[in-house]
Amino acid sequence: MTRADDEERLARAALSRTLEPGDELGGGWLESHGAVATVRALAEDRPLPGADPQRWAGLRLRAAAARPGEDLARAAEAGGRFLCPGDAEWPGQLDDLGPARPVGLWVRGTASLRLAALRSVAVVGARACTEYGAHMASVLGAGLAERGWTVVSGAAYGVDGAAHRGALAVGGATVAVLACGVDVAYPPGHRELIARVAEQGLLVAELAPGDHPTRPRFLLRNRVIAALTRGTVVVEAETRSGSLVTARWATRLGRQPMGVPGPVTSGLSAGVHRMLRDGAGLVTDPADVVELVGRMGELAPEPATPVLPRDLLHPDTARVLEALPARRAVTVDWLARASGTPPEPVRARLHELRALGFVDCVRGHWQLSAGSH
Amino acid sequence: MTRADDEERLARAALSRTLEPGDELGGGWLESHGAVATVRALAEDRPLPGADPQRWAGLRLRAAAARPGEDLARAAEAGGRFLCPGDAEWPGQLDDLGPARPVGLWVRGTASLRLAALRSVAVVGARACTEYGAHMASVLGAGLAERGWTVVSGAAYGVDGAAHRGALAVGGATVAVLACGVDVAYPPGHRELIARVAEQGLLVAELAPGDHPTRPRFLLRNRVIAALTRGTVVVEAETRSGSLVTARWATRLGRQPMGVPGPVTSGLSAGVHRMLRDGAGLVTDPADVVELVGRMGELAPEPATPVLPRDLLHPDTARVLEALPARRAVTVDWLARASGTPPEPVRARLHELRALGFVDCVRGHWQLSAGSH
Repeated sequence: MTRADDEERLARAALSRTLEPGDELGGGWLESHGAVATVRALAEDRPLPGADPQRWAGLRLRAAAARPGEDLARAAEAGGRFLCPGDAEWPGQLDDLGPARPVGLWVRGTASLRLAALRSVAVVGARACTEYGAHMASVLGAGLAERGWTVVSGAAYGVDGAAHRGALAVGGATVAVLACGVDVAYPPGHRELIARVAEQGLLVAELAPGDHPTRPRFLLRNRVIAALTRGTVVVEAETRSGSLVTARWATRLGRQPMGVPGPVTSGLSAGVHRMLRDGAGLVTDPADVVELVGRMGELAPEPATPVLPRDLLHPDTARVLEALPARRAVTVDWLARASGTPPEPVRARLHELRALGFVDCVRGHWQLSAGSH
Repeated sequence: MTRADDEERLARAALSRTLEPGDELGGGWLESHGAVATVRALAEDRPLPGADPQRWAGLRLRAAAARPGEDLARAAEAGGRFLCPGDAEWPGQLDDLGPARPVGLWVRGTASLRLAALRSVAVVGARACTEYGAHMASVLGAGLAERGWTVVSGAAYGVDGAAHRGALAVGGATVAVLACGVDVAYPPGHRELIARVAEQGLLVAELAPGDHPTRPRFLLRNRVIAALTRGTVVVEAETRSGSLVTARWATRLGRQPMGVPGPVTSGLSAGVHRMLRDGAGLVTDPADVVELVGRMGELAPEPATPVLPRDLLHPDTARVLEALPARRAVTVDWLARASGTPPEPVRARLHELRALGFVDCVRGHWQLSAGSH
């Protein structure tokens, strides 16, 4: 697939406001006719196969109200962008979703989504988690980030938030996949956390800017979390939790489902124990997670040499890489001065570079990896 | 194998004081030459194959000090008995241990060991368990007893004690397999509990009366617990716990290993989590346990009709069965009056009868099962 041209991009942006996430009928139209013809069919009221009249009418109303040009401009102003399949930054593993593949992804943040998702793990779980759940999410988030893995989650209270905070606290990049527009801070109490993820990592949404979350949107968002990552860890979940939906998507997509056991006297561990009985991997710490997702063969090669050429790096990332001396390990502060960038973004870029195999970190000092000289 | 005659029984009683539990070399002599010839060889200093001189001399010293006639008489006085392979009460599943099969078993209590072990599950775990571990052991003990399963364990503080107490509290019978003589109350703080197990269930030991526990005796005792039962549940265990030895024996013998998950922040659950990763069944309540051991096919048929003829029942048990009216469900108190037995032993006999398929319990009322009319 080649990079989307402007007409295609505009059509997909319009469809991201028209089709609900995971609409497989709409996804089928995109596969058969393309986005531009689908938008035109809606505008000219030429119903496409499979749509009943009422649904078609509803889609037409939404399509008529879409202002994709304005959305794209507003997103660009706010430092965002809209990714389409075929773009260099598009994470190819989303294609495993078939007709349920997102129409496109609205993204905020400076990191590359494709690179961030290359070695990523989802850490999800209950909103109303226990202290134990929050502790474990935070420990996993931090440990995965320290091992060069990107943490992917939602932005909910409880486990999601704790996983992000754990990873961000050690300077890792995280990806929050939202069930609303990337400009909507939901839940409101996570406004600061969401802003921090946008700075240090990435916000990702299928929904167009300004769109609001609904229960089905949350559940369908979960398929994106599962598809982006090499495995999904459920930290705490009741037996009817949406986190188990994410784990089931992970299994269906050939990713590794994992669960953190807990006291059987806690209803918040009951869903996890059911997963474990059904064959999910039992994990007790970040090393367990890395061991399991590391087993995912071709999907997850540990990069011995960098996984992509330097000239595909984001300019900010490339600048940090270029500032690294050839034969010496340096601190984040040293690099910040050398590259003229504040320490926090430098740290995030370094974690990205480590995930890609360009650099190693030894006792807090960063150096070029053997294969990247 | 036929019932042991007096000479064979006397020889095995002597060897139970001479050979350490699980001595496979000695077990081999018993298989090849029989107990009587083995005792004679020791007495006449004709070394049997495989014994180095020092070990042979040690065994001869012990054999010379054995007074099996006195031991048998003392045991009988204290209401005990000595079981040999081939006896009606000998649990045939112990033969799975091969040359590590116990030479014989010293038993205290009125129930039949063979019948009690027919539908039995081991519940074992850490001495220094947490409140959570004690709670779960007690819940499992009670729930298994209520479902007509016999709980088998050691007599240690912590998980063992809690499992017995849980089962005894609902009137169930339990089996305590000791690493010392059945007349030795170890640990001393469990003197009352051990006495209660002897009344309501069974005390079992390979070691001769008066013998004391040692570390190897504890570990080798665990093979008897594993072999007697259809599965072993480990409630809490550190990674180097003796309970994991029991679980490994269970696996090796084709029994079901099971584990109760707990917080990964607790070292006392680390051993259990390792078991679960290695394929043990994850159990969260008594129903899970029964489901897993019920799957053990030929080993564990749910008795649709009684599993043995009435005339093989212990006389006390037969009396309770005979007191049950033909077409009516009755309470324990009713039966106690009808059979002239106090309520507690009646309850224990009823649980034994249920395990054997003679009776059912519906909402606290007991009746003859369909197949036993």
